[in-house]
Amino acid sequence: MERLLNKLIERNKYLTKYGKVADYIPALGNANPQDIGVCIMDIDGDIYTGGDYNKKFTIQSISKIISLMLAIMDKGEEEVFKKVGMEPTVEPFSSLYKLDLSHCEKPSNPMINSGAIVTTSLIEGKGEEKFNRLLKFMKKIILKDNLNYNKEVYLSEKETGYKNRAIAYLLKQKGLIEGNVENILDIYFKQCSIEVDCIDLAKIGIFIANKCKNPKSKEVLCDEKIASIIIPIMTTCGMYNFSGEYAINVGIPSKSGVAGGILAVVPGRYGIGVYGPALDGYGNSIVGYEILKDLSKELNLSIFK
Amino acid sequence: MERLLNKLIERNKYLTKYGKVADYIPALGNANPQDIGVCIMDIDGDIYTGGDYNKKFTIQSISKIISLMLAIMDKGEEEVFKKVGMEPTVEPFSSLYKLDLSHCEKPSNPMINSGAIVTTSLIEGKGEEKFNRLLKFMKKIILKDNLNYNKEVYLSEKETGYKNRAIAYLLKQKGLIEGNVENILDIYFKQCSIEVDCIDLAKIGIFIANKCKNPKSKEVLCDEKIASIIIPIMTTCGMYNFSGEYAINVGIPSKSGVAGGILAVVPGRYGIGVYGPALDGYGNSIVGYEILKDLSKELNLSIFK
Amino acid sequence: MERLLNKLIERNKYLTKYGKVADYIPALGNANPQDIGVCIMDIDGDIYTGGDYNKKFTIQSISKIISLMLAIMDKGEEEVFKKVGMEPTVEPFSSLYKLDLSHCEKPSNPMINSGAIVTTSLIEGKGEEKFNRLLKFMKKIILKDNLNYNKEVYLSEKETGYKNRAIAYLLKQKGLIEGNVENILDIYFKQCSIEVDCIDLAKIGIFIANKCKNPKSKEVLCDEKIASIIIPIMTTCGMYNFSGEYAINVGIPSKSGVAGGILAVVPGRYGIGVYGPALDGYGNSIVGYEILKDLSKELNLSIFK
Amino acid sequence: MERLLNKLIERNKYLTKYGKVADYIPALGNANPQDIGVCIMDIDGDIYTGGDYNKKFTIQSISKIISLMLAIMDKGEEEVFKKVGMEPTVEPFSSLYKLDLSHCEKPSNPMINSGAIVTTSLIEGKGEEKFNRLLKFMKKIILKDNLNYNKEVYLSEKETGYKNRAIAYLLKQKGLIEGNVENILDIYFKQCSIEVDCIDLAKIGIFIANKCKNPKSKEVLCDEKIASIIIPIMTTCGMYNFSGEYAINVGIPSKSGVAGGILAVVPGRYGIGVYGPALDGYGNSIVGYEILKDLSKELNLSIFK
Repeated sequence: MERLLNKLIERNKYLTKYGKVADYIPALGNANPQDIGVCIMDIDGDIYTGGDYNKKFTIQSISKIISLMLAIMDKGEEEVFKKVGMEPTVEPFSSLYKLDLSHCEKPSNPMINSGAIVTTSLIEGKGEEKFNRLLKFMKKIILKDNLNYNKEVYLSEKETGYKNRAIAYLLKQKGLIEGNVENILDIYFKQCSIEVDCIDLAKIGIFIANKCKNPKSKEVLCDEKIASIIIPIMTTCGMYNFSGEYAINVGIPSKSGVAGGILAVVPGRYGIGVYGPALDGYGNSIVGYEILKDLSKELNLSIFK
Repeated sequence: MERLLNKLIERNKYLTKYGKVADYIPALGNANPQDIGVCIMDIDGDIYTGGDYNKKFTIQSISKIISLMLAIMDKGEEEVFKKVGMEPTVEPFSSLYKLDLSHCEKPSNPMINSGAIVTTSLIEGKGEEKFNRLLKFMKKIILKDNLNYNKEVYLSEKETGYKNRAIAYLLKQKGLIEGNVENILDIYFKQCSIEVDCIDLAKIGIFIANKCKNPKSKEVLCDEKIASIIIPIMTTCGMYNFSGEYAINVGIPSKSGVAGGILAVVPGRYGIGVYGPALDGYGNSIVGYEILKDLSKELNLSIFK
Repeated sequence: MERLLNKLIERNKYLTKYGKVADYIPALGNANPQDIGVCIMDIDGDIYTGGDYNKKFTIQSISKIISLMLAIMDKGEEEVFKKVGMEPTVEPFSSLYKLDLSHCEKPSNPMINSGAIVTTSLIEGKGEEKFNRLLKFMKKIILKDNLNYNKEVYLSEKETGYKNRAIAYLLKQKGLIEGNVENILDIYFKQCSIEVDCIDLAKIGIFIANKCKNPKSKEVLCDEKIASIIIPIMTTCGMYNFSGEYAINVGIPSKSGVAGGILAVVPGRYGIGVYGPALDGYGNSIVGYEILKDLSKELNLSIFK
Repeated sequence: MERLLNKLIERNKYLTKYGKVADYIPALGNANPQDIGVCIMDIDGDIYTGGDYNKKFTIQSISKIISLMLAIMDKGEEEVFKKVGMEPTVEPFSSLYKLDLSHCEKPSNPMINSGAIVTTSLIEGKGEEKFNRLLKFMKKIILKDNLNYNKEVYLSEKETGYKNRAIAYLLKQKGLIEGNVENILDIYFKQCSIEVDCIDLAKIGIFIANKCKNPKSKEVLCDEKIASIIIPIMTTCGMYNFSGEYAINVGIPSKSGVAGGILAVVPGRYGIGVYGPALDGYGNSIVGYEILKDLSKELNLSIFK
C-alpha cells in the first residue's frame, strides 16, 4: 500500500506547478506548493503513509464536518436542519446573494460558509467554551492530546474575514444565529485554524467510515446516525462547486480545505487524509484531487460502483 | 421479496392523501392519486412486483437520463459537458434566472430542464430522427417493442410549455443549442411523454446498475463508463432540489418524474421502478419516496453505508 | 439655431470613431457610423435641422413610447400598470432574470424589453390589427402618410430575436401577456423596424412636449395625462441603464434606440430628434448623447434647473 | 399659502390610519402616527408652515443627501462615482444581493444603504471627525446651531443594524470602503439619527433649490454643480423603489426617511419639508406623499410639465 501511495505521489507531483497556494492571508501563502502528503487508515486501525504526511497545515473548511457533527449531537438533527439546508448548490462557498433573495430561508447546506457559521453557532457553550468543546471532541476522535489552532492564521482570518462577517451579520438579521456575532465568528475562525496533518485527517475519516467509532478505542462518541448524515453531505457538497464532477471522477465522500487538505471517507473501509497546498480554481488541492482519483481506481473505492 | 413490497405498499398507502397529482396539464391531472406500484429487478434479471406495477404513466423527467446517455454516446463526454455542467443546484428544476446572469455559462446539470433540453439537442439525427433514435435506444434497454409516447400528454405539454420555451430560447441565444428551437422542444416534449410502467423503469435501472448491460441479453449497448457518469449525477441531482435530503434518507441513486415515477439504481444489485402520482412539494412521488426509504433500510441499499 | 446645430455636429463628429454600430443583425450593421443628424421642432411648429437629418433609420426602442401611449389609451392607466411597473432598474434592457425570481411579479418598467412586450400585447386589435393601429397612431402624431417598417430589419429581428422570445414566453408563463406569443412578438419586431428620420422623432417629441397635441394641427389625439406619464418614465428609464447619469449630464427626458436614434422632449418647449448610429457601451448613440449634452447647456434645457 | 397647507393637512389626515410607524427599533415606534407637519421656504427665504411643523424627528435616509454632497466636496465627483453608481434600481433600499453577483462592481446609487455607506466613508476626517464635519456642514446649510443626533435612536440603530453591517463588510471585502468598518457604521448610524423638524428640511431643500446657496446668508457653501448632481439623483432614486411612480404622480425631486420625513426640492423656487411618521409599504410617509402630490398640482410644481 505504501508503495502505491508513493507511486501516486510521484506520478502526480508535476501537477503542483499548475496550482496556486491560497494567499488571501500571508500565513497561508507561506506554504510550500510542492508539498504532497497522504495517509490511509483502514478499518483495523492500520496506517499507511506517503510523502509529507506529517506536515502540519490548518484544517480550514474540513472543520465544517466537525462542527456539523457536534451541532447535531448538541441540538439534534431536527433543530440543526431547521436553520441550515441539506441541498447542494452550484454557488461558490462564500456566496451570500441567495440569502438576500426573499424566497431563501436558510443557507443551502452546512458545507458552504454561511451554513457552517450556523452550525458553529449551534454548538453548546458560552463564548470560548464552544471552541473548547469542539477541540475536545476532535481530540477524542483522533485520540491525540496536543491539538491546537495556529494563532497566526487565526488572527489573520479574524482580521481580514470581511466576507464571513458580511455573511454572519446577514444570518443574524435573518434570525438564523443567536448570540453575539463577533463571538461566533471568533469560534469559526479558530476552528478553521486548527492544525492537523494527514494522519489526523485519516483518523477523522476512519471514525466516520466506521460509523462514528474510533477503530482502536472502539469508544462510541456519537450515534452512528450522524455518520449516515455526514457522508451523503460530503458527497453532494464537500468539494465546493466541484462536488458533482468530483463524484463522477473520484466517487469518494470527501471534504477539502483551502490550506490544501482533503479528508476522504470510504464507508466501512478507509479514512484518507491528503495534503497539497497548491489549489485548483475551485479551491481544492490540485494534486490531492488527482491522487484520490487514482486511488479510487486502483483500489476500487467509488461508492457509485 | 414480493411480500416485502406489498407490506411497504400497505404501510405507506395512507400517505397518498398528503400528496397532490400534477395538474398543470389535464392529461396528468386524471391520474388516480391512490395508485402505488413497485418493481424490482435483480442482477440475474429476476423480477419482483407489487401493487399497480403495470399501470402506465408518462416517464417525464426520468427521460433526462436516457437523453443524457444517448447524447454522450453520440457526441462524447467532453462535448456534452462543454454545454451542460455536472454540478447539483439548489434551484427548482425549471429555474432559468442563473442562465441570464453574466457569470453563468451553461446549465448547472443535465437533470434540470435547461440542461436536459441541451442534451436532447445533442442527440444525433435530423428532426424526428432524434426522437426515433431515443425511442429505439429505450426499446433496446428494456427489450420491449411496443413503447411509445402518449399523444394527449405530448400535445398538452407542447401547447402549454411556456417556461420550457423561455428556457430553450435563452439557451439558443447563449449559443448552447443548435438548430431549430421548436423542433428540439418537440423532441423534448415527446421524450417526456413516453409511456412506461414500473417494470420498464426497473429494467432501465438494472441496465445502469449492471454497467450498461441488460442482464438477460448481455448485449452491451454502450460503454460502462456511461453508467459511472449517470449514477453520481442521479445521486447529486436526481430528485430535484430535494436530492441532498433524499441522499441522506434513502441513499439510492434515483431520478423522479412529475407523473409519479421514480427510477432507482442500486449499483451491481438492483434496478427499481416505483409509481405513485401523488406528489410532494418538490415534485417527487410522496409514497414512492417513503417506499424507497423503507426498502433502503430493509435491504440495506444505501450507497453511503 | 441651425448654426448652433451645425456647430455642435462639427464639434462632436470626432466621437463617432469611439462608437460601434449595432451589428447583431446585418441590416443594422450596414449603417454609416459617421452619419449625424439633428432636428428641433419648437412649440410653434417651427423646424430647425442639421447634418443628416433626413437619413432614415429604424426606430427600435423609441417605439416603446408609442406602444405605451397606445396601450394606456386602449386599456387605461390602471390596467396597463397592473402588468408592468413604473420603476427604473439598473439592469440592462434585455435582462430577464428578475422575472424568474419568486418575488418579482411584473417587468420593472415599459422601457425594458419585457415591459415593452407587455405594452405591445395590450394594444387593442387582433393580430396584424395591433400593428396597423400603432402605425396609424404614429402617422397622426407625425402628420405624415408614408410611414412603414423596414422589411429586411423586421425579418432579421424576427429570425434572430431569441432573447426576446425567451422573455415573451416567460411573460406568457407568468400570465402577463395574453394571446399567441409569436403574434405579439411579430408586432413587436415590426414596431421596432418602423423607419423614421430626425424630423419624425422631433415631431413625436413636440407632440409629447405639447401635452399630446400636434402644434400645427392642434388635434388632440389623447388625454394630456398621458404626456405626464410618459415624460417621467423617459426621464427615469429612457436611456437604458445609463438613465441616471444621463439625467445628471443632460437633464432632458429622452428615449434612445439601438439603431442610433434619440428622441428628446423639453416639456412645453421643444421636441428633438438626433441620429448617430455609432453607439456607446450602453447602446446609446455616442455622438447623440454629446450633442444633447451640449444643447442642454447652450439652450438651458435641463428640467432639473 | 399657510391656508393651503392647512387645507391639505386636513384633507389627507384620514390616511394616517392606513400607514404604519417604523418599529424596527423601539425609539422610532414611539412616534405618534397622527402627526403631520409641513414647511415651505421660498427663494426669498420666506417660510410657510402648517400642522406639526416643529415636531422633531430623526432625519434617517434624508441624510444620504448631505453625505453625498460632502463626499463630492471632499473627494470630487469623479472619485465618488468610481465607488458608487448613479443609476436607479428597482431593489429595496437595504438589498445587497447584487453586490455579491460577479458582474456588479459598486452600489447602484448613493440613495440605497450600500451607496450611502460608501459616501459616508468618503467624507474627510478621522473617526468622529467625519461626523463632526457633516454636522457642521448641516448647521451652515440650516443656519442653526443647536443641531444634534438622538442618542437613543443612534444606540438602537447601532445595536440592531445587522443588515447594514452585512452591507458594510461586503463593501469592505470588495474594496469599496477604506478604514475600520465599525467606525464608518458608527458615523452612518449617527448621521441617520440627527434630529430635525420640517423647517430644517425646508431649509436644506431651498439650499439645493437655490444652487447651493442659503437664500438669506447668500453664503456659497459649495459649487452649484453639486445641486445639479443631487437633484436628478433625488428624482430617479430618492423615494426608494417607489421613485418612478412618485415622479409620475408628484414630479418633485424628493428624498424620504424612515422616521417619516420627506425633503422636496423645486428647483429655483421652493424647499419643502414634510413630516408624517405613518409609512406606506415602501417606507415613505403615507400622508407626506399625498400632501406633496396635492401641493404639486395646486402650485404646479412638477418638473416634468
